[in-house]
Amino acid sequence: MPNSITSKRIFLAPEPRAMSDIFDQSDLARLRALGDVFVHEAGPVTEALFDEKVAHADIIMGQFDLPESRLKRIPSLRAVFNVEGNFLPNIDYAYCFLNGIRVLSTSPVFAEPVAEAALGMAIDVARGISKSDRDFRQGAEEYGLAANVEAFSLFRQDVGLIGLGDLGRALVPLLRPFGCRLRAYDPWLPAEYIKTLGCETATLDEVLRRSRLVIVVAGVTSQNQGFLGEQEFAAMQKGSGLVLVSRAAVVDFDAMLDFAERGHIRVATDVFPQEPLPASHRARHTRNLILCAHQAGALDAAIKQIGKLAVGDAELIARGLPPILCKLAQPETVKLLRSKPIDKS
Amino acid sequence: MPNSITSKRIFLAPEPRAMSDIFDQSDLARLRALGDVFVHEAGPVTEALFDEKVAHADIIMGQFDLPESRLKRIPSLRAVFNVEGNFLPNIDYAYCFLNGIRVLSTSPVFAEPVAEAALGMAIDVARGISKSDRDFRQGAEEYGLAANVEAFSLFRQDVGLIGLGDLGRALVPLLRPFGCRLRAYDPWLPAEYIKTLGCETATLDEVLRRSRLVIVVAGVTSQNQGFLGEQEFAAMQKGSGLVLVSRAAVVDFDAMLDFAERGHIRVATDVFPQEPLPASHRARHTRNLILCAHQAGALDAAIKQIGKLAVGDAELIARGLPPILCKLAQPETVKLLRSKPIDKS
Amino acid sequence: MPNSITSKRIFLAPEPRAMSDIFDQSDLARLRALGDVFVHEAGPVTEALFDEKVAHADIIMGQFDLPESRLKRIPSLRAVFNVEGNFLPNIDYAYCFLNGIRVLSTSPVFAEPVAEAALGMAIDVARGISKSDRDFRQGAEEYGLAANVEAFSLFRQDVGLIGLGDLGRALVPLLRPFGCRLRAYDPWLPAEYIKTLGCETATLDEVLRRSRLVIVVAGVTSQNQGFLGEQEFAAMQKGSGLVLVSRAAVVDFDAMLDFAERGHIRVATDVFPQEPLPASHRARHTRNLILCAHQAGALDAAIKQIGKLAVGDAELIARGLPPILCKLAQPETVKLLRSKPIDKS
Amino acid sequence: MPNSITSKRIFLAPEPRAMSDIFDQSDLARLRALGDVFVHEAGPVTEALFDEKVAHADIIMGQFDLPESRLKRIPSLRAVFNVEGNFLPNIDYAYCFLNGIRVLSTSPVFAEPVAEAALGMAIDVARGISKSDRDFRQGAEEYGLAANVEAFSLFRQDVGLIGLGDLGRALVPLLRPFGCRLRAYDPWLPAEYIKTLGCETATLDEVLRRSRLVIVVAGVTSQNQGFLGEQEFAAMQKGSGLVLVSRAAVVDFDAMLDFAERGHIRVATDVFPQEPLPASHRARHTRNLILCAHQAGALDAAIKQIGKLAVGDAELIARGLPPILCKLAQPETVKLLRSKPIDKS
Repeated sequence: MPNSITSKRIFLAPEPRAMSDIFDQSDLARLRALGDVFVHEAGPVTEALFDEKVAHADIIMGQFDLPESRLKRIPSLRAVFNVEGNFLPNIDYAYCFLNGIRVLSTSPVFAEPVAEAALGMAIDVARGISKSDRDFRQGAEEYGLAANVEAFSLFRQDVGLIGLGDLGRALVPLLRPFGCRLRAYDPWLPAEYIKTLGCETATLDEVLRRSRLVIVVAGVTSQNQGFLGEQEFAAMQKGSGLVLVSRAAVVDFDAMLDFAERGHIRVATDVFPQEPLPASHRARHTRNLILCAHQAGALDAAIKQIGKLAVGDAELIARGLPPILCKLAQPETVKLLRSKPIDKS
Repeated sequence: MPNSITSKRIFLAPEPRAMSDIFDQSDLARLRALGDVFVHEAGPVTEALFDEKVAHADIIMGQFDLPESRLKRIPSLRAVFNVEGNFLPNIDYAYCFLNGIRVLSTSPVFAEPVAEAALGMAIDVARGISKSDRDFRQGAEEYGLAANVEAFSLFRQDVGLIGLGDLGRALVPLLRPFGCRLRAYDPWLPAEYIKTLGCETATLDEVLRRSRLVIVVAGVTSQNQGFLGEQEFAAMQKGSGLVLVSRAAVVDFDAMLDFAERGHIRVATDVFPQEPLPASHRARHTRNLILCAHQAGALDAAIKQIGKLAVGDAELIARGLPPILCKLAQPETVKLLRSKPIDKS
Repeated sequence: MPNSITSKRIFLAPEPRAMSDIFDQSDLARLRALGDVFVHEAGPVTEALFDEKVAHADIIMGQFDLPESRLKRIPSLRAVFNVEGNFLPNIDYAYCFLNGIRVLSTSPVFAEPVAEAALGMAIDVARGISKSDRDFRQGAEEYGLAANVEAFSLFRQDVGLIGLGDLGRALVPLLRPFGCRLRAYDPWLPAEYIKTLGCETATLDEVLRRSRLVIVVAGVTSQNQGFLGEQEFAAMQKGSGLVLVSRAAVVDFDAMLDFAERGHIRVATDVFPQEPLPASHRARHTRNLILCAHQAGALDAAIKQIGKLAVGDAELIARGLPPILCKLAQPETVKLLRSKPIDKS
Repeated sequence: MPNSITSKRIFLAPEPRAMSDIFDQSDLARLRALGDVFVHEAGPVTEALFDEKVAHADIIMGQFDLPESRLKRIPSLRAVFNVEGNFLPNIDYAYCFLNGIRVLSTSPVFAEPVAEAALGMAIDVARGISKSDRDFRQGAEEYGLAANVEAFSLFRQDVGLIGLGDLGRALVPLLRPFGCRLRAYDPWLPAEYIKTLGCETATLDEVLRRSRLVIVVAGVTSQNQGFLGEQEFAAMQKGSGLVLVSRAAVVDFDAMLDFAERGHIRVATDVFPQEPLPASHRARHTRNLILCAHQAGALDAAIKQIGKLAVGDAELIARGLPPILCKLAQPETVKLLRSKPIDKS
């Protein structure tokens, strides 16, 4: 009864990722079982290469340039997999939407590791783990209740989520056993949907004012750059926590550091406006701040999942079924996204 | 239908805790509604005071000396609540067991905050949060995959629990959404019981060898002091994590630091053989170590629960019902425990 | 920051459903706030009506005929909502896919009530509830262990799911607290995906042979009609249970009744090859059979959700965002589906 | 480190249960490994037998008569296991409490199967499964929405629990995925405790008035016989459901049938004031009633657990540790219980 495989021609140009990072041997074998696979490991996809190897492809994996002029020359094309992890402006999405070509991203591989890191950073902000470690190494630690004067527990706490996309949805189950009251602000999602995830729909202001801990998992779009600034931080409760794991561009970074320095909020961030952070950047000395070096998603184990997701969906396509593992580009949102290449690898 | 209250005489001597730390106004009002409450806020319970106020008590809250010679003089006594949090050798347990006197501890208040801290420390050990923060502040951070060379995720990981008492049982639900395979070693518990908690029963050796992360939540007894030593750490996987949140006395602390320093394991500890840790102690400079200053349980919010638990159970007793919120001393185990006063406040 | 609404023209022809069944006043008010809403409550959508009211629509709600010849005349059309609950052959899907028109179904409203009914039927099959009631009313009941000779518990049982679409995914969380080992057979889904749902991927044969209880939640397609027949029922364990809540056409109904009658399996079914079932149909007297009258999904409360889902997604579309609540027709699968109109209302 | 076994003398008289019902070979082997085991399979424990085999026992398993006069003659006795499942008045509990003898019951084995049956009966009451089956067999079924006029879903419903002992606590996790608002009435439990189980504390009146479904899992005591009568049923919402799985004695059975017959409530009961129910009892013809023949707990698989629980705890005792699997008799409650022998086998 299961559909049998129709042989596919697959062109794979993983740059800036390396084949060995994203495919293990068994994934590669599964891919090769689907038909003719041509791997272009490094270097640009020249016109000559394009004509020879891409123009007849059914499936492309990679994020090289695919403007309308090229897409028109690949009439057999049905799916393009971005294996870097973000929808980038490398491809003419509108053309794809009107020509039965799905554009897919393997970004779901990052949801679990980022959610895990976000929870770890949240507990750290609330309970002062890295602060205690820092104090110990300077011989300045206090113990027990004295160490916990500003600490709070996540159990039954009011927690706010800004963004409830893939990352937010992976975070909710991790917070569930703490019995938190979860308020979510996500202007892209209807209240009915947010409720089914076990969260309450809230305005941005409600999330900021009522939460003891706010976790920012919103991606950056053309509409929300710097939307968390001085006014928003001021609205947060004195002594509350802020965890930022998505994109630095959604906050006014300097204002965030100001509010941390003066102790109004305690912050953990995995992202920075500039990476590497300049050696002299004030964040390196800011109090009430936990700095993580863009390491929330970039786990080897997650990167290895990229190949699995792409192959799993390619298998479905080869069997005449719709893909289900990768994230599908949508006309409305893809044009709003503003991620930089390998911003969260 | 609910049983009505029979008025009780209650003697309350909270030292070394303070009344205001453990009771809020509403808890105190509930307590006073149960009968005659005498509070002896500070100082020893002298013989004169004993004769006047303790000898007629139905319920005692406190951890002052209650040898058989005194217990014999309190024929009405039915329950003694330890509001510090450990069963201490201040009372003649054997006498109580044979005379219908329950000895109860409010220690369950610490289970949730310790479990939360343990999870935070576990994610920190696995994902390198406080290490990243430390590197940033020394201008030595690496980013993304380079920062994560030694990192691992808890998702679907093999995790070992040493001890599955109150702390372990509070930790299991927090680990559940990570889909870990949980192996538990607890020589006080039967396999049937461990299975109902969703864990696999394992020997100590299995837990050490098969786990990527080991969390020690075992209390210290006369039988297990220093049971985690050089041999046990050597049995752990290279690069695995160890989180210690119960009692320093269960490990050979120096051996633990050796194995951390040389990178065989990565360790987070909330407890120390001596607190405060001497200024010159090598732990302050040990690599692959996260130091927390005995702050896992000592949250203000947890301490405040002490009164609620004691009052809730006192209400049940006053209504002719068995207590259910506090931990009940058991003849077999209470004599094995070796906690120091306010070791985990 | 949230996108503002762009006024939409909406044509709504709910037949065979009635407006009052699917929209409450507040949903209708939300819909009207999106722009011009024209409701055609009953009767065919004539060409005259089409030209006047449909040809300028941005959004259509209904399942009247929309062949290519009509779709071409609605250049503004962006979404068609099927509010009956199945993707029917009333519309030229291929045209829609190539012209940026989403075809959506409100079928997700049925997932929860069907999953609930399936669980109830499963417990009934396993524990003999309706059989006991039947015996009582005939004065033939046995008690306790004697009543339970053939009973089994779902706890820690091997349970097989055939189909893991919307219904299956709603059922998995209900089975989770029973600690079942869940094997799922769904040829449309990759193993990676099935694993994230907490199930093991299995062949049809494995599901049948290893399960004490099999629950069929697979929709009917052009490929799977009658795929559960004599051979498959024979492969099931003696005394195992079978619950059928999707479509009668996926089983050989007569063979199923044979295997129930002779006690090889115990069956509960919510669907029948012909409804109403003929008065003389043998199923009315078959032993080891529980008969439910296509009532798993058709709850008033679920029907009322239809309007909420359609309005919620229409609001997203009006704000320039992709819909998320309804089920989106996919080119590959929509052509395989073989549901009859209002087959599971 | 684990404690080693001290050899025990065990006297086992399982009547009215049979050895082969409650012990499998491996459990029996484990038991025999603990020391000298004497099994008295059937017949009374005569004085001669007592003197020869019981008077030196450390552990007794059985529910034969143990008045003070006998207990005094067993100075080595430390534990008595009731393997029938209820605390009966066969033993002098007061003597045991004052002499370091634990009285234990294996009743926890019934919690899961009873909770499962209660959930199945609850879904049946709400969704009309056995009613539909009955209608089909009389050629009177209606379909779809017409069949569901009075049906309701458990999802996000207000559900009330009367009693939150072992049975109630096993039921709560099964209801959790339905997202119910759970109100619990249990006069033996403090609000703090009920809250940790994820329920709201409520008065009996609140539970009755605000719930769409009420599940009675309260045991019968000297204080609550017939506490659910005409007044209480009248307080319930019209069309709400009632599930009774504990003891018939807690309700006024006739009043319950009256309210079912007239359609005010829909009832499912597993227990009856008299079993077997007289052939002419009106319940056999009552409408809106589902009758189950005391089969909620009496599963073969549960009975087999009896031996496992008793052996598991006996092993702990032999190792000098407190038992943890069985239910421990408490002075306050054991004297209130009013179960009949093998009332819920």
